[in-house]
Amino acid sequence: MNLHPFDAAMALQPQPDGSCTGSTSPAYWNMLGPYGGITAAIALQAVLQHPDRLGDPIALTVNYAAPMAAGAFQAHAVAVRTNRSTQHWTVTLSHQDAEGATQVSTTATVVTAVRRDTWSTNDALMPEAPAPDTLARAIRPNQPVAWLQRYEVRPISGGIPSRWDGQGEHSLSQLWMRDDPPRPLDFTSLAALADLFFPRIWLRRATMVPVGTVSLTVYFHADAAHLAASGSGYLLGQARGQGFRNGFFDHSGLLWNQQGLLLATTHQIVYYKA
Amino acid sequence: MNLHPFDAAMALQPQPDGSCTGSTSPAYWNMLGPYGGITAAIALQAVLQHPDRLGDPIALTVNYAAPMAAGAFQAHAVAVRTNRSTQHWTVTLSHQDAEGATQVSTTATVVTAVRRDTWSTNDALMPEAPAPDTLARAIRPNQPVAWLQRYEVRPISGGIPSRWDGQGEHSLSQLWMRDDPPRPLDFTSLAALADLFFPRIWLRRATMVPVGTVSLTVYFHADAAHLAASGSGYLLGQARGQGFRNGFFDHSGLLWNQQGLLLATTHQIVYYKA
Repeated sequence: MNLHPFDAAMALQPQPDGSCTGSTSPAYWNMLGPYGGITAAIALQAVLQHPDRLGDPIALTVNYAAPMAAGAFQAHAVAVRTNRSTQHWTVTLSHQDAEGATQVSTTATVVTAVRRDTWSTNDALMPEAPAPDTLARAIRPNQPVAWLQRYEVRPISGGIPSRWDGQGEHSLSQLWMRDDPPRPLDFTSLAALADLFFPRIWLRRATMVPVGTVSLTVYFHADAAHLAASGSGYLLGQARGQGFRNGFFDHSGLLWNQQGLLLATTHQIVYYKA
Repeated sequence: MNLHPFDAAMALQPQPDGSCTGSTSPAYWNMLGPYGGITAAIALQAVLQHPDRLGDPIALTVNYAAPMAAGAFQAHAVAVRTNRSTQHWTVTLSHQDAEGATQVSTTATVVTAVRRDTWSTNDALMPEAPAPDTLARAIRPNQPVAWLQRYEVRPISGGIPSRWDGQGEHSLSQLWMRDDPPRPLDFTSLAALADLFFPRIWLRRATMVPVGTVSLTVYFHADAAHLAASGSGYLLGQARGQGFRNGFFDHSGLLWNQQGLLLATTHQIVYYKA
């Protein structure tokens, strides 16, 4: 049985000091470092596999301070506060540089909680959309990077511009997405999928400028049973830019499973050069 | 000259170890601790007054691990990584408990950056709304807490339900807001205003249930000049709930100045008992 590349990327080895170690995955490599979604998933995984962890993820914020270097890294998750039903974590990802000094690439915070059944509703409803198998797969031009092969994306609207003519008018995209090859959804793969939206400024301006996510937040509205019910089906993702100003833009996004259940909401702020 | 209560709440004393100390403000007290927006502003202030700080705030995430105790607290801001034009900070707020042990109440991360003039746009436009002085001030029922007196809120739509009859239908609110007494806007007061939306579940269900913000994120789209131009005018705030499930809901919000410039976007996930 072959290990799914996502599971290989999530493999962390616990260390005696409570941290764990791992190795970056060439299968999820972007241009200067790993795909940001895989870095987010690693930060979350460091918490999820910690023996002291209480409950399931509620919130994840990842700050991309510097690219993770290719190769070995350390993930250090610390339970800063444990309450009766919630737990607050800080996470640091770091590696050794050529001189042997520790370089922090990523900081993150995670909140986990034991959830109870309560009154619940999707206030944000899944948009109407054609079924995934009626839509073509997306092709991202000019980006021969490994991680793009790890996802199946079928744009519904607001796909990558076919002409880079500077004539963009909006920043709203809707798309179907899943792991490739398909893989049953879990919290870490959901976190990774939350970073899958291509940069909103490319759509808004129909201009491909250099970008880099600075900070990403994911709120989890699903529990493990909801994720299991999602299986390896598609998620419908929607993202829309809000403010673009002086080198940074943000977007607000939502992810539903094929049954229309809101699994996660996500936000990020992104550096752009223009 | 009297010090504005907000400035009194932001007063931090630098300590030799790089941390700073302060004292909680009775003027911003909520039921079990300070108003969450003031806690967010304190975390940001600890970075802004740090001698090593580079540039202005881009992103702030605050995790409310436990209530801040009334009285003295310590704020410890650490520059984890300084790049050419961006800087990544972690912040911890803590206090001594009755046994003299250090209790962490709050963790935060802050990204600051030196911004350059670039192509910019408000993709999220300010909604049409009547002028603030044509609308009545909000009254929050059953909440005799100090911090509510520190803000002037004039609801445009989606105000606090006048009947708690369980018949809520949506979670969208638009409102004018500013400090009371009025105070020229800065990054810390903007961060505090970002937490001003009353709990979305109260509107969505027309039912007042116990709540508590777990994690708050603010993205800053304004620089110091934009804030100065906003003066002590009103901000238009809009917030909408997205998912309400098994004890936690989130909302996504935006804040524009009276001239229609998008100053900040904000998100939070909130515990609810139902």
